[in-house]
Amino acid sequence: MTTGHIFIASSLDGYIARQDGDVSWLTPNGAEKEDHGYSAFYESIDGIIMGRGTWDVASRFDPWPFDKPVIVLSSHLSQADLPPGLGGAVQVWNCSPHETMQRVAAEGWNRAYIDGGKLIQSFLAASLIADLTLTRVPVLLGQGIPLFGRLPKERALMHQGTRTFASGLVQSHYQIIP
Amino acid sequence: MTTGHIFIASSLDGYIARQDGDVSWLTPNGAEKEDHGYSAFYESIDGIIMGRGTWDVASRFDPWPFDKPVIVLSSHLSQADLPPGLGGAVQVWNCSPHETMQRVAAEGWNRAYIDGGKLIQSFLAASLIADLTLTRVPVLLGQGIPLFGRLPKERALMHQGTRTFASGLVQSHYQIIP
Repeated sequence: MTTGHIFIASSLDGYIARQDGDVSWLTPNGAEKEDHGYSAFYESIDGIIMGRGTWDVASRFDPWPFDKPVIVLSSHLSQADLPPGLGGAVQVWNCSPHETMQRVAAEGWNRAYIDGGKLIQSFLAASLIADLTLTRVPVLLGQGIPLFGRLPKERALMHQGTRTFASGLVQSHYQIIP
Repeated sequence: MTTGHIFIASSLDGYIARQDGDVSWLTPNGAEKEDHGYSAFYESIDGIIMGRGTWDVASRFDPWPFDKPVIVLSSHLSQADLPPGLGGAVQVWNCSPHETMQRVAAEGWNRAYIDGGKLIQSFLAASLIADLTLTRVPVLLGQGIPLFGRLPKERALMHQGTRTFASGLVQSHYQIIP
């Protein structure tokens, strides 16, 4: 079965974006010049699964930043809504988290990058996440789009390590105990 | 002016207690045998300011764990509601965060320990917190009593250091930039 992996940053109070989606606060104190391990993480995954909200942001990226398959989970979008230039790089599926993981497993994925607030919450709730790399940005936003949400049951984590950066970012890696 | 200081633990998803107040998850993997610096922090403060919710828990402690003055902020409790055994150790004040800090300053406090979820939120919102030591417990509770709440404006933090423990606890210290 394909495993799900999260690599994300949040404010200290747990938001992944301001209420309007703005993420300019993610790189304080020169953080944009530091290597927080995103490239190594990206190399380790076979494809990206994102929700509609993340797609709305990612679809405006020019040039397109991904050279791996991208699945957009949406019950409203369809393949015809995608920009023509993306060819087969992006597929829109209307599937549950479990169905999605079965389909990408059938396509040979070992590791899926699960991206976006609501999608992360639904994959965590469905016990489809193997590990989580969370980078805390030293700011309290006070409101915004939350990283975590309700879960049907508590999940114990195993701390794998923490790195700190001169910018004040603190990155912790956790395995989720099945 | 007296400065406010926070020393608290939360789940990775930002809760300080389960919905029913239970905090038994705070010490996984032998964490209760580790020194997370509480005693050193306690030595550094002149007194404790807590809210009604924290008082409801603390008032059941036997023996009474504090040998420093405790202020309970409440608009409902009065001094007559306190157990007689506590003598002058605990005072109930019906004051705003700003008024409280002015009164404890007049009593000679330099550093106040601000404890309890709602009280922490109101003192953060009132810009009365100088620094924050936050210990993350490796668990996702999925729901509970949140540490952080809405703020009238964003607050930048300065990361002062992070320690990790064999139990998986990760403790970060932040100054709040005025």
